[in-house]
Amino acid sequence: MPTRPGGRTARTRRAVLEATVAELAAHGYGALTVERVATRAGVHKTTLYRRWGGKQGLVAEAVEGFAAGAAEVPDSGRVEEDLRRWARSIVAMLTARDSGAVVRALFSTGETAEIRDLRRRFYRTRSALVVPIVERAVERGELPTGTDAAEVIKQVGAPLYYRFLVIAEPLTPAAADLAADAAVAAARAGVFAG
Amino acid sequence: MPTRPGGRTARTRRAVLEATVAELAAHGYGALTVERVATRAGVHKTTLYRRWGGKQGLVAEAVEGFAAGAAEVPDSGRVEEDLRRWARSIVAMLTARDSGAVVRALFSTGETAEIRDLRRRFYRTRSALVVPIVERAVERGELPTGTDAAEVIKQVGAPLYYRFLVIAEPLTPAAADLAADAAVAAARAGVFAG
Repeated sequence: MPTRPGGRTARTRRAVLEATVAELAAHGYGALTVERVATRAGVHKTTLYRRWGGKQGLVAEAVEGFAAGAAEVPDSGRVEEDLRRWARSIVAMLTARDSGAVVRALFSTGETAEIRDLRRRFYRTRSALVVPIVERAVERGELPTGTDAAEVIKQVGAPLYYRFLVIAEPLTPAAADLAADAAVAAARAGVFAG
Repeated sequence: MPTRPGGRTARTRRAVLEATVAELAAHGYGALTVERVATRAGVHKTTLYRRWGGKQGLVAEAVEGFAAGAAEVPDSGRVEEDLRRWARSIVAMLTARDSGAVVRALFSTGETAEIRDLRRRFYRTRSALVVPIVERAVERGELPTGTDAAEVIKQVGAPLYYRFLVIAEPLTPAAADLAADAAVAAARAGVFAG
């Protein structure tokens, strides 16, 4: 059987990863089993064990796909606008029912080594995608030379995840803009160019 | 029996609330029972039911006491210094074994209405204590008139809780200073004086 992209193997893989994310959203990491994912995807469980080794490998790949798929990477030519769009896409992800449930499954769950690994994958995947927004702004001279791009990206996300996970305050477009504007103002002032 | 402060009733109350926080740190909210707290405090459980009604009332008061007790409210006369000290006290709380475990028990636990109520109590208690730092800075003319003090306080805490709960990055004094400096820079730029 060929494994060309778009072929049957690729379709099966996509269906399995989507089923994994759906199970994570519906029941959380603890209750997720390879069997349940296989049933939801309509695939025999031996296929999943063969390809992903087991639950952890399967969820790791599904979470990375989810993290990348939910991210929009704007490139408007202005850092304020790019970071506002990025902040709004975080808000959209956190407030949509299914994707919000996935984030809760990752972050509002007891600490285990597996969960910590999934959190890191989620965060690294998303951060790597949008760090170029800040790097481009430094190249254009909008932000000081030496600005730590990853810190600026953290600064945009932090107030939004904080609202979602800690203080349970509404995630509005205004909250997104505020998070972006505060990060840009601090970056302009050179706080992240230590 | 008199109920004067420092008397036996006050000592019992303190012992019970401390035992509640210790149980929360050791076993989380789900496993906490009035019986376990009573045993740890060396008090009969009927005393606890009489005074607090049950688990939820008991934990609510204990969490508010914990939130206030762990907070230092600096007043150095300079907003940068005050917010750096506040940020460092957040880092100290999150990195100390027992208090860090309490915060995890509140925030890395599945969502229930009770947990949400406890989170709100924790956050409101702490925010109310330190909002005056920012209000004093506005009065002294260090920050723009109309600055939303609660937003500035959120901005200081957000990157620290984000590191602790989401991205699992080290909580260092440098991270505390960065969180404070970024909040002050954004506030100076008028971002929170919308």
